[in-house]
Amino acid sequence: MISNNSIELSWSRKASEEAAAVLSLSCSGHGKANLDGLISDDGTPVCECNACYSGPDCSQFIADCVLGAEGGNPYFLEPFWRQNAENSAVTVPGWHRMGHEYDDGSLISKQLEKIIRNLHIVVGNAVTDGKYIVFGVGSTQLLNAAVHALSADDSSSTPTKVVAAAPYYPFKFDGDTTPWINNSSPSMNFIEIVTTPSNPDGQLTKAVIHGTNVKHIHDLAYYWPQYTAIPSALDEDLMIFTLSKVTGHAGSRFGWAIIKDKVIYERIVNYVEQTTYGVSRETQLRTLKLLNVVLEGNGRRLFEFGNDTMSFRWEILSTIFSASKRFSLQDRNAEICTFSKDARAPTPAYAWIRCENEEDEDCRTVLIGEANIIGRTGYDFGSKRRYVRLSLVSSQDDFDLLRLHLEGLLFLERRTNLISKGGDEI
Amino acid sequence: MISNNSIELSWSRKASEEAAAVLSLSCSGHGKANLDGLISDDGTPVCECNACYSGPDCSQFIADCVLGAEGGNPYFLEPFWRQNAENSAVTVPGWHRMGHEYDDGSLISKQLEKIIRNLHIVVGNAVTDGKYIVFGVGSTQLLNAAVHALSADDSSSTPTKVVAAAPYYPFKFDGDTTPWINNSSPSMNFIEIVTTPSNPDGQLTKAVIHGTNVKHIHDLAYYWPQYTAIPSALDEDLMIFTLSKVTGHAGSRFGWAIIKDKVIYERIVNYVEQTTYGVSRETQLRTLKLLNVVLEGNGRRLFEFGNDTMSFRWEILSTIFSASKRFSLQDRNAEICTFSKDARAPTPAYAWIRCENEEDEDCRTVLIGEANIIGRTGYDFGSKRRYVRLSLVSSQDDFDLLRLHLEGLLFLERRTNLISKGGDEI
Repeated sequence: MISNNSIELSWSRKASEEAAAVLSLSCSGHGKANLDGLISDDGTPVCECNACYSGPDCSQFIADCVLGAEGGNPYFLEPFWRQNAENSAVTVPGWHRMGHEYDDGSLISKQLEKIIRNLHIVVGNAVTDGKYIVFGVGSTQLLNAAVHALSADDSSSTPTKVVAAAPYYPFKFDGDTTPWINNSSPSMNFIEIVTTPSNPDGQLTKAVIHGTNVKHIHDLAYYWPQYTAIPSALDEDLMIFTLSKVTGHAGSRFGWAIIKDKVIYERIVNYVEQTTYGVSRETQLRTLKLLNVVLEGNGRRLFEFGNDTMSFRWEILSTIFSASKRFSLQDRNAEICTFSKDARAPTPAYAWIRCENEEDEDCRTVLIGEANIIGRTGYDFGSKRRYVRLSLVSSQDDFDLLRLHLEGLLFLERRTNLISKGGDEI
Repeated sequence: MISNNSIELSWSRKASEEAAAVLSLSCSGHGKANLDGLISDDGTPVCECNACYSGPDCSQFIADCVLGAEGGNPYFLEPFWRQNAENSAVTVPGWHRMGHEYDDGSLISKQLEKIIRNLHIVVGNAVTDGKYIVFGVGSTQLLNAAVHALSADDSSSTPTKVVAAAPYYPFKFDGDTTPWINNSSPSMNFIEIVTTPSNPDGQLTKAVIHGTNVKHIHDLAYYWPQYTAIPSALDEDLMIFTLSKVTGHAGSRFGWAIIKDKVIYERIVNYVEQTTYGVSRETQLRTLKLLNVVLEGNGRRLFEFGNDTMSFRWEILSTIFSASKRFSLQDRNAEICTFSKDARAPTPAYAWIRCENEEDEDCRTVLIGEANIIGRTGYDFGSKRRYVRLSLVSSQDDFDLLRLHLEGLLFLERRTNLISKGGDEI
């Protein structure tokens, strides 16, 4: 039917050449040109520089630059995709999937659903057998959809409370679980969002409130071998994942929910239909391609790459902070991992730093003032301002700068300590 | 910087070959293979057949097939994209735009915003000068966002009513505008959704309720030269467009809103952030590519193609129905078009058919029973069941079948009339 050997690269060749041309710009290794990026007056693509680099080819380092470490852009996986450039590129023809629905009338690519089920089998982080899968525009949409779906049963006069154990990732919450642990009255309905590993601190957690009036949403964004041991395949009623944290493609806005109950599944499908009429076809196509690369061979290469990168970063971070009395990092206790088949400490996406000195009440401000690093305050996570969250999942450039700034900060601490002890030792 | 002549097609060549291979399958011209479609056991892609065709190569016509004409899949533009295959294909590298935000921290490609402004200048259908633009996951998300943004001011005890003039496209409405035209009390707040040209009937419409307590959302999905004369560039406070109806890419889920008021703009931006954190980067990249093709040369080719196709379909339809007393089509009055620079009749996306016989109260059921065509009942559009909407924007195969079935239906009417007049003339 198709002669694979002598395919005429007619229409698709131009797209491929354009992509290769734009992306062949090296930008000194500190930036990149983008296919949809700015174009200079002479028609050549413009380098978009990494933080703290500038100039037409991003070669100029801005020494006194302030580093933003408050986000969670997962650029640490970008080198993996560059290494796998050939298999991960996808050429989308102009007439690809123009209709609203797939041929079966659904909004979901069956090929992609199949590969997501395979992925969970290979990684062993979630049980999908006998469960439904629905796609959403990122886990953001699915969290909203899940809350909506689980609240719909609520016929009581008081609205369902949405809670999570602090520190938690900010959502439209009604607060921390703590007041309700021993106290929840059966007349109140609860939805507890269980994020495990936790964002911000990377700890493996479990639901803390229970009962017939409590429903759970498991946000498993970080339950992948890059960030944590996988002690077992979770088998919860409603589990949400996002492409963002597994392959690093945050901009694609792709998430999926694994759902046990048919009624809840149908409500979530309906919510996604009514709010966005499904997920972009380009995104589903590209996600299929990316996850195919993840599953190539024994399905371990991406996770090993990610885990190696994160482990290396945590080693550096631990060394920097080991001497400090002023700042402490979260604990990281080893667990048995069924994926790597050994005991391993978590390598969380974020450093969760505590300012230990009495006077350093606002740790974020301390880091801005003394280290030129902008983190995210613990207050945002239902915790104290004494904590600050720093991203460890950004690009190598960003991490190198973070390291530089933190080493400077800790050097100052050592010097201050020495001065207060006598000073002439410096 | 780049040698355009001798670019090595290294990593991007494979994607291009894969796309070319899958899409070289002809499927007898009655179907297509898709990059994310089913794969047979021997590894070759599987043809997905158009409605009423089957077999491994889609060559078998199913004679007694029921045609679904209730949707609005805009496949009539697919041939345009096949003709422009080379310029409209896009190769997405594995590491394209992995981050949550663009480099300016926004969720919106500035290149794409620029080209959308150009598009409106070339077509002359909307004034964008001095207005803000925000992207959404289809116009679906933006309609919800706009209602949310315009309701946020409402401090009165009665909630804002969302209304539209019937027949209207189904949304979460509080009903038709008619009761409120002379009757709206200043203590009630209204949002009127003005869809022009109207869906279902393609008429150019204007807002019908006015006052300080009334806000308008203009849904301009069909305000493009494929479907209507463009009498002037609309200059409304809140206008919503969708890629689906201009280029035909419904599956991409891409829409945009043009907004005058900064506060409303910010609320819509915030709504999109909170519900989906923006629009997929793959989609924004592909939309940029597609709209660049639309604007090539004098920016008229797509619209001429679309208008020619729709005009041809309406000619056929008018001829079929001209002899009928049992069925009537909507009126189509010519208007001066500033884009085509002549007077032209609208060529709406849908036929809005009225069953004229007293006993044909449910026109949809009549068409199913007597013509094997499934339309959408007028009742869904706030109108009577005596009306039915049929899609005219689907593929050529679908339109050919629609024509065949309608010709059969109208032949039956003629025969019945002749029999009742005496019969021996047949």
